[in-house]
Amino acid sequence: MTVQNVQSFVAGRWIAPGDDARQIASAIDGQVIAQAGGAALDMQEVLDFARSTGGPALRKLTFHDRARMLKALALELNKHKDALYEISYLTGATRSDHAFDIDGGIGTMFVFASKGRREMPDGQVYLDGSPEQLGKTGAFLGQHICTPLLGAAVHINAYNFPLWGMLEKLAPTLLAGVPAIVKPATDTCYVTELAVKIMLDSGILPAGALQFIAGGVGDLLDRLDCQDAVSFTGSAATALKLRSNPRLLGNAVRFVAEQDSLNASILGPDAEPGTPEFDLFVKEVHREMTTKAGQKCTAIRRILVPEDRIEAVSDALAQRLAKTVVGDPRDEATRMGALVSKGQKADVLARVAELGAEVQRLCGNPDDFADSAGAFLPPMLLLCADPDGAQRVHDTEAFGPVSTLLPYRDLDHAIALANRGGGSLVTSVITHDAGVARDVVLGAAAYHGRIYINDRTSMKESTGHGAPMPHMIHGGPGRAGGGEELGGVRGVKHYMQRTAVQGSPDMLTAIGGTWVPGATQKDGGAHPFTRRFGVLEIGETIVTAPRTVTLEDIAHFAEFTGDTFYAHMDDAAAKRNPFFPGRVAHGYLLLSFAAGLFVEPNEGPVLANTGLDNLRFMKPVSAGSAIHVRLTVKAKTPRNADYGEVRWHVTLLDQDGDKVAEYELLTMNAA
Amino acid sequence: MTVQNVQSFVAGRWIAPGDDARQIASAIDGQVIAQAGGAALDMQEVLDFARSTGGPALRKLTFHDRARMLKALALELNKHKDALYEISYLTGATRSDHAFDIDGGIGTMFVFASKGRREMPDGQVYLDGSPEQLGKTGAFLGQHICTPLLGAAVHINAYNFPLWGMLEKLAPTLLAGVPAIVKPATDTCYVTELAVKIMLDSGILPAGALQFIAGGVGDLLDRLDCQDAVSFTGSAATALKLRSNPRLLGNAVRFVAEQDSLNASILGPDAEPGTPEFDLFVKEVHREMTTKAGQKCTAIRRILVPEDRIEAVSDALAQRLAKTVVGDPRDEATRMGALVSKGQKADVLARVAELGAEVQRLCGNPDDFADSAGAFLPPMLLLCADPDGAQRVHDTEAFGPVSTLLPYRDLDHAIALANRGGGSLVTSVITHDAGVARDVVLGAAAYHGRIYINDRTSMKESTGHGAPMPHMIHGGPGRAGGGEELGGVRGVKHYMQRTAVQGSPDMLTAIGGTWVPGATQKDGGAHPFTRRFGVLEIGETIVTAPRTVTLEDIAHFAEFTGDTFYAHMDDAAAKRNPFFPGRVAHGYLLLSFAAGLFVEPNEGPVLANTGLDNLRFMKPVSAGSAIHVRLTVKAKTPRNADYGEVRWHVTLLDQDGDKVAEYELLTMNAA
Repeated sequence: MTVQNVQSFVAGRWIAPGDDARQIASAIDGQVIAQAGGAALDMQEVLDFARSTGGPALRKLTFHDRARMLKALALELNKHKDALYEISYLTGATRSDHAFDIDGGIGTMFVFASKGRREMPDGQVYLDGSPEQLGKTGAFLGQHICTPLLGAAVHINAYNFPLWGMLEKLAPTLLAGVPAIVKPATDTCYVTELAVKIMLDSGILPAGALQFIAGGVGDLLDRLDCQDAVSFTGSAATALKLRSNPRLLGNAVRFVAEQDSLNASILGPDAEPGTPEFDLFVKEVHREMTTKAGQKCTAIRRILVPEDRIEAVSDALAQRLAKTVVGDPRDEATRMGALVSKGQKADVLARVAELGAEVQRLCGNPDDFADSAGAFLPPMLLLCADPDGAQRVHDTEAFGPVSTLLPYRDLDHAIALANRGGGSLVTSVITHDAGVARDVVLGAAAYHGRIYINDRTSMKESTGHGAPMPHMIHGGPGRAGGGEELGGVRGVKHYMQRTAVQGSPDMLTAIGGTWVPGATQKDGGAHPFTRRFGVLEIGETIVTAPRTVTLEDIAHFAEFTGDTFYAHMDDAAAKRNPFFPGRVAHGYLLLSFAAGLFVEPNEGPVLANTGLDNLRFMKPVSAGSAIHVRLTVKAKTPRNADYGEVRWHVTLLDQDGDKVAEYELLTMNAA
Repeated sequence: MTVQNVQSFVAGRWIAPGDDARQIASAIDGQVIAQAGGAALDMQEVLDFARSTGGPALRKLTFHDRARMLKALALELNKHKDALYEISYLTGATRSDHAFDIDGGIGTMFVFASKGRREMPDGQVYLDGSPEQLGKTGAFLGQHICTPLLGAAVHINAYNFPLWGMLEKLAPTLLAGVPAIVKPATDTCYVTELAVKIMLDSGILPAGALQFIAGGVGDLLDRLDCQDAVSFTGSAATALKLRSNPRLLGNAVRFVAEQDSLNASILGPDAEPGTPEFDLFVKEVHREMTTKAGQKCTAIRRILVPEDRIEAVSDALAQRLAKTVVGDPRDEATRMGALVSKGQKADVLARVAELGAEVQRLCGNPDDFADSAGAFLPPMLLLCADPDGAQRVHDTEAFGPVSTLLPYRDLDHAIALANRGGGSLVTSVITHDAGVARDVVLGAAAYHGRIYINDRTSMKESTGHGAPMPHMIHGGPGRAGGGEELGGVRGVKHYMQRTAVQGSPDMLTAIGGTWVPGATQKDGGAHPFTRRFGVLEIGETIVTAPRTVTLEDIAHFAEFTGDTFYAHMDDAAAKRNPFFPGRVAHGYLLLSFAAGLFVEPNEGPVLANTGLDNLRFMKPVSAGSAIHVRLTVKAKTPRNADYGEVRWHVTLLDQDGDKVAEYELLTMNAA
C-alpha cells in the first residue's frame, strides 16, 4: 500500500506534508498508510484569505443561497460515499460505524440546508424574535438581528468522526455566512482530506470559504480577534489549554468546546426484567459500548441500575457482549472494529487502570488482543459497587469500549449519581413512567446538554442515546465543555453576532426586509393580489371599503355555521360576560367579511390562502359597526422557482379607527 | 456626618466591616462617609447557603411566582426612592442621573416582572422553541427546555450604577430561579447596601435568594463549578483577570462580561446643519458626555462626523458644553455632578494624557477644578484629526466626561472607524436615510451589541444612545467583553441550562406541561368548554360529530361574505390552480363550521375566543366532504385571579381521517 500524503488546502493551494510529517498507521494492522503535517504554513495568510476572500463572497449570498449550497455539497458527498466508506475502514470503523460518521455527516448537511430554507429568510439579516415597542406610540422600536461574524471560524475536530465532526460544524458555519478553517485530528485526517477534496473539486464553494489544515495549527489562535470563532471537539485537557490562550481571553474570542464526558444511562425503577424497557436498555447500552469501539463523546460511561437489578443487567449485557465479534471492520462477521491507534488503545488501558480498586471487571479481557498488530480491544464491562464512595468512576474517562455499572437505591440517588459527572453531553433514562422521566429532567437537566428518554412507545423511531441530531443542541455544561453546537438555527447563531437594533419602524423595515407595524404603508398602484410575487414590494398596502355588520348578519352566521354561542345570540347574557358590551359579532364572521372585502375574485398571482398566524381579537364588534381592512405586504419568502409565500399584515378597523383584530395572513403567490 | 458602616449580608447575618475596612469618600467634598470590607467572610458558607437554601426555595416557585416577587420588590424599592436619591447624591450623581440608576433599575425589575408573566409559563420548565419531529411518524420528538442552574449567580458590579447595576442582573437571575451573591464596587456600595436592606427587610425574598458582599470576594471564584455563573461589569483589565481564573476555565463556569468600550456615534451623511438630525446628534452627544459625568459604559467616546461638518459639530457641542454647569449635584443649577472619586478623576486624566499627540483638546480645562475637594472635571471635547493613523483613540478609554471628534470621508470610512474599537456595547447613527441605517447595520452589526438609530420621526420616543433597555440585549463582542445581559427572556436564559430533551409525545407533555402532538388525548367526562380553568386538564379532548360541506354551503358563504375567489366559484378555473382539485370550500368557511361543531352555546367558563395561532390549511375540501374536529387542551396560563388563558390544539379532519387544517385556538376561561 502506498503512503498517502495528506495535503493542506490553504489560500487556494494544496500543500504537501513537510519533512517532519507525522506517520499515520492503519488501525487494523499498524502499517503506515499516510503522513500529514510538517509543512510551513503561514497562518496569517490562512486567516487573511478567509477574512478577505471567503467571508465577503459568502456574505453576498442570502441564507437561502447558502442553504442551496449546503444541499449541493451534501449531494456531491453522497455521490462519493463508497470511496469515503472504503478509506474509513482504515480508521478501524465498521460499516455500521460509517452510518454515523459518513451518512450522519451528510444527513446533517441536508438538515441544515432544509432548515436554512424553511426557517431563515432569503436575505442577509436574520431576525431574532419580534420587535419590542420601546415607547408609548410605537414610533421607536427594538429588534434583535443576527449577522455573520466578519472573521473566520476555526474548527478543531476530534479523530473519532472524521467526516461528521467536520460537517456538523461546517454546515452551520457556511449557512451563517462565515468561512471555515478546518483542522482535523491527525490520526484520521486522511478521511477528512478526501471529503474536503470532493467538496472543493465540485466548485460549489466560493474561494476562501473552506481551508483545510492537516497537522498543527501553529500560531493560528494567537492571531484571532472578536470576529473569529473557535469550535473545538476533543478532550477536556486540550480544551482547557486552548481556552486559556491569552489572545482568546483578551479579545473575548468565542470558544465553543464539546468535550467527551462521563455520560450516564439510567434504567428506570419501573423497568423490571421482562419489560420492553429492560430489553431496550440492554440493547442501547450494548450499542453505545461497541459503536466506534466506544470512541464516542456521547457513549454511556456509567450505567445506573436499581441495585436489585445489577445482576440481571450485567448478565444480559455480558451475554450480548460475548457475542460481539471484534475484528477487521471489513469482515462481515465483525460487530466491533478497532480503536483508531495503538496509542489510543494504550490510553484506554491506562484510564481503566486509574479506576483501580473502585471497579471490578465483569467481562472483556484486553489480553485477548495483546498480540494483535491492530488497535483492538474487547468491550469491557466494569462494576463499581460503591458509587457514592467512588470518585474516579465519575471523572475518569476511558475513551473506548468501556462502561461501568453502578447500583442506585432510588431515583433521587440515580439523579445525584448522574450529576456527579460534573456536567455531561447526554444522560438517558429508559422508563415507561412519565413521572420518572419528569423527575429525572427536573433533577438533572441543569447538568446535561441532552436528556434522552426511551420506552416501548418511542423505541421504533428513537434515534439512540449516542446520536446527536442536527435539530437538537449538542454540548453540555462543565465537564462536557460548557458549549453548544447544532440545535438547528441555534447552531447557526453561534457564528453570527446578535445585535439589538433600535429605531423607527421605517428604519427597522429597511434593515430587516420585513414590514414592521408603524412603518410606511404604500400604494402599489394596483390591488396587491393582482401583482406577482417578484414585483410585490414590502409595505405595499390596500385599504378596503367599509362593510357594516348587521344584527341579521350575526343571527344568520350563527344559524348557518351552528356557532350559537350566547354572546352572539342573547344580549342580556352577553352583557353578563366581562368582555362584551352586549351581543357581538363572531370573530370568524369578521375574518370572513374581511376576506370578502380584500379578496380579488379573478384568476391571478395569488394561488391560495395557506394559513394565518398571530390572530388577536382586540375589540368586540356590535351590530351597526362598520369594519374595513388594511392589508400590507409584511414579508416574502421564495419557495421554489414557481411560487413564493407572502406574509400579509392584516388589520381590521371599525368606524372609529379602533383596531378590531390583527393577524398575519399567508398566501402562496406565483413567481 | 457619621461614617456609615457598610455591612455584608451573608448566610442570613449582617456582618460589619473589619479592622481593615476601606474608607470611602464623598465624591463632592472628599470627606470620608463610609467604610466597607475587611471582615473575614467564609466564602464557602456564602456559596453553601445560596446552593442549599436559596436555590431550592426559588426553584419551588414557578416563573409566575418569581415574576410577582420581582414586582413586589420593585414596588418596595419605589416606596423608598427618596432615601435612595438622597444617599446617591454622595456618589456625585445628579437628580437626572438618578433617573437612570434608581428609576431605571426599578423599571428594569418591572419589565422582567411583566415579561415573566407574559412570556414564561406558570411552571418550572421553560420551553425553548417548538418540538422537533425526529422520526417518521412523530412517535419520537425533541424539545429544548431551560431549567435553572443549581448553583449560585455571582454578580460583580461596577461603581457607576450602584442600583441599576445590581437590579439589571438580579431581576433575570431571580426570575430564572437562581440565588444571587451581589458584590458591588466598593466606591458606591453604601447605595447598594441601602437597596439590599430595603429588599431584605420587606420579607419578600426567600432566605438565601440574595446575599451581599461589601468588600472583596476573597476566594469565592476558586470555589465555583458548572452550576454557578459569574456576571461581571467593569473594566477590560479586571474582566481579563477574572476570566483567566483557572477554576472558571477548568470547570467551564459561565462568565459574562460587560466591559466599557469605545462606543461611537455617527452623524449621517444626510444630516446637514439645519436638519432635525443635526440638532438631535449634538443633543445626544452632549447628553452622553455629561450624564453621570461620562461614567457610563455605553457613553459615546468617539464622535464620527463627515469631515466637512467637524467645525459645525464642534461649535454646536462647545456651545452646549460651555453652558453645562458642573458642581454639587444637589444644587438645582447643576447639570453635571462629580466623578465618583479623586482616584477616578486622576485615572481619567491619565487616560487623556495617554491619547497624547493623537488628539487636541477643543474645550474643557481640568485645571479649572484642580483645587476642588470633590472629584470634579469639566466635560472635555477632543479632536483627532487623523483617525486612520491614530490607535489610542480607538482603544484607550477615559471613563469620564471625555469624547473625541473624528472626521470621516464617506460612510464606509465611518463604519470602518466605528469597527476599529474592536467591539463595543453600542454604536449609534443619527440619520433620516434608511439606506444609511441599513448600510451601517450590515457593515457594523457584527462589531456592536447594539445599534441605535434615531431621526426626526423617532426622537420623541427614543430611549437614548446610552440607555440599555431591559427588552434589548446589553453587551457586545471583543472589547465590550463578549457577553450579553438583559434582552428580555434571553437574559433569564443566561442563568438557566438549555437541555435538549428527546422522547415520546407523552413524555414531553409530562415534562413541559404543554400538550405535544401525538400525546394522549383524554376524555374529561364533559365538554371541556363546560369545565373551569382550574379543573381543565392538559390533554383533555373533545371529538365532534362530522358535518358535510355542500356546494350550496360554498356558494352561499361566497355570496354572504363577498369572498368570491374563483377557486370557490368556478370549477374549471379552480382546476387550473396548481393547488386545487376543482371548486373548494373557503378556509374561513371551514373554521366557522368547526366553531359551530365544537362550541358550547350556553353561558359557562369559556368567556371569549381571544385569538388563533399557527393556522395551516393542509388539504383542500371539496363539496361532499364531511369534516369533524378534534380539540385538545394544549396549555393553560393563569392571567389573574379571575381568568386564565387556554390554548387549544385544533385539528380539522375529513371523512378519510386526513388533516384538513390545524391551528391553536385561544380562549379566556373563568378561573
